[in-house]
Amino acid sequence: MQSKQRILLGHGSGGRLTHDLIRTAILSKFGNPILDKLTDSAVLPYREKLAFTTDSFVVTPWKFPGGDIGKLAVCGTINDLAVQGARPEYLSVGLIIEEGLPYAVFNTIIDSMAQAARKSNVAIATGDIKVVEKGACDTIFINTSGVGRLVTRRDLSAQRIKPGDAIILTGTIAEHGLAVLASRRGLDLDLGITSDCQALDSLLVPLAGKIGGIKFMRDPTRGGLATTLHEIAESAGLGIIVEERKIPITSKVRAACELFGIEALFVANEGKAVLVADKGVSGTIVRNLRRHPFGRHAAVIGTITSGAKNHVILHTSVGTQRLIDMMDAEPLPRIC
Amino acid sequence: MQSKQRILLGHGSGGRLTHDLIRTAILSKFGNPILDKLTDSAVLPYREKLAFTTDSFVVTPWKFPGGDIGKLAVCGTINDLAVQGARPEYLSVGLIIEEGLPYAVFNTIIDSMAQAARKSNVAIATGDIKVVEKGACDTIFINTSGVGRLVTRRDLSAQRIKPGDAIILTGTIAEHGLAVLASRRGLDLDLGITSDCQALDSLLVPLAGKIGGIKFMRDPTRGGLATTLHEIAESAGLGIIVEERKIPITSKVRAACELFGIEALFVANEGKAVLVADKGVSGTIVRNLRRHPFGRHAAVIGTITSGAKNHVILHTSVGTQRLIDMMDAEPLPRIC
Repeated sequence: MQSKQRILLGHGSGGRLTHDLIRTAILSKFGNPILDKLTDSAVLPYREKLAFTTDSFVVTPWKFPGGDIGKLAVCGTINDLAVQGARPEYLSVGLIIEEGLPYAVFNTIIDSMAQAARKSNVAIATGDIKVVEKGACDTIFINTSGVGRLVTRRDLSAQRIKPGDAIILTGTIAEHGLAVLASRRGLDLDLGITSDCQALDSLLVPLAGKIGGIKFMRDPTRGGLATTLHEIAESAGLGIIVEERKIPITSKVRAACELFGIEALFVANEGKAVLVADKGVSGTIVRNLRRHPFGRHAAVIGTITSGAKNHVILHTSVGTQRLIDMMDAEPLPRIC
Repeated sequence: MQSKQRILLGHGSGGRLTHDLIRTAILSKFGNPILDKLTDSAVLPYREKLAFTTDSFVVTPWKFPGGDIGKLAVCGTINDLAVQGARPEYLSVGLIIEEGLPYAVFNTIIDSMAQAARKSNVAIATGDIKVVEKGACDTIFINTSGVGRLVTRRDLSAQRIKPGDAIILTGTIAEHGLAVLASRRGLDLDLGITSDCQALDSLLVPLAGKIGGIKFMRDPTRGGLATTLHEIAESAGLGIIVEERKIPITSKVRAACELFGIEALFVANEGKAVLVADKGVSGTIVRNLRRHPFGRHAAVIGTITSGAKNHVILHTSVGTQRLIDMMDAEPLPRIC
């Protein structure tokens, strides 16, 4: 009953509760053919087709191995455009700052944002600053919205996915969530895990423009790879079989997951993408991805099936099969 | 020294400190020809020229006479597009919610947003939900970004303003800030002041498309009319003379300002615009504005001068003259 009456942390997890909230309380009110697609970026039907996306970042702590909230806010929105097959071009930046934030921290975050934007040749076109009194927000929250130009001939859409299509992952999983978690707990123990926080435009946009057989892309952030695969299965109305041994993962991540007692499949990534493509072009895609530093560990990890509709089945390394559910609540709040 | 080392509430006031922060710490890092204009919306050079804007809303309390944070978030971004001479078309919505927010409040806010968007025929195209733990934010913060199509033949720009141009205000001032303030203090005393929170697209966009003599528009929100006039004077590198007795203001607002000891010129509006236009078309503009329910009290309130560069001079009702400065710090934090 409680969960029906109040918003819970899990409603922001990106998992099942988020999906339920969006479907019951948001789409019923805001719904329109563009929003209803629930793609990472909306496609705006101008004379040039544009992608449009938004994301708020509330990560704590504001700095972690491999990045900070500024880099994350720019890369995250660039990635939402890139997985829609759009070249990121313009960002907006909305800052909500807690009174008393040291200038040095503010400047570090702004520098990170400027550097990340420059690297992807994205212009920050517009912005807004709000300051709230001490205690009314935690350090700093950043919203970035983005506009980009579609490079694909056909819109990427889960509705184009067919049985037999290949599922490709661009690299190793679970590094971002673990890097944030380790820095949050103030562990002196250095896990040696760095967030994968990075902009994927240079990896994905040229590929999306070139290879028509790519049908859908998504970056597995909150809720991890498992949640993204679920979203794909449900949007396509098909099943997914994933081979555990083919999922790229480092031994450090494996060890850290055991230490914390969490499952890597549900841990957030911030520099990876899942691609669904015609089986016939999957080899070409993987070869192309591996030539890029952010795609060195790219691999086909599974396949779309006509059976087990809306389900994700994991063929485990030990030869068993199990159903992978969408993340329910929130094991690691505020990792992005 | 303190103010150099930490972000203060005043840095979010929209006044002098905000301007200083943007110029010293933001534009030096993010600067580019589009952002540097510091217009309410950026103009994106696509084949159809698009306006792009963002705003975060942190108003407290979340509900006030005449509106709530949801209505404000939709109308505020619509207004930033409208004052750029753009027809608002697509919004993004980024929600940051404090864990434990009652569903009833959430639904009320979503309903307000949906209703405001529908009224202006704007589609919510994309969105994001974050939930933070209790105490990590105050109730709910909303970012809306917006995209619209320019209807003007020439871009509205303060650089087009010339001495002799007329300054037009679309209606009475200071209602939003006072309505929020009164509801915040929990006064039983009913001031009878309702926020002017409303979307100005139907008032401004047809006019901007029709009358070429309109050179610049801005909605006087944080920092009030005084701050907006200052921004105009400084952007144009010219002076402004304003006639106090021509500024529309209700007797209730006058009384409330005396009660609270604040100056109406510095109090936020959320449903008004300042227009700068050729003197020759100012009569036509005022007549057009007055035909619309949101422009009934429109009036020419002042003029652009070549003297007193970068300054705003008020000709008071009692016959004296005084310099009106930009708001320095923040008398009323979190009114939007």
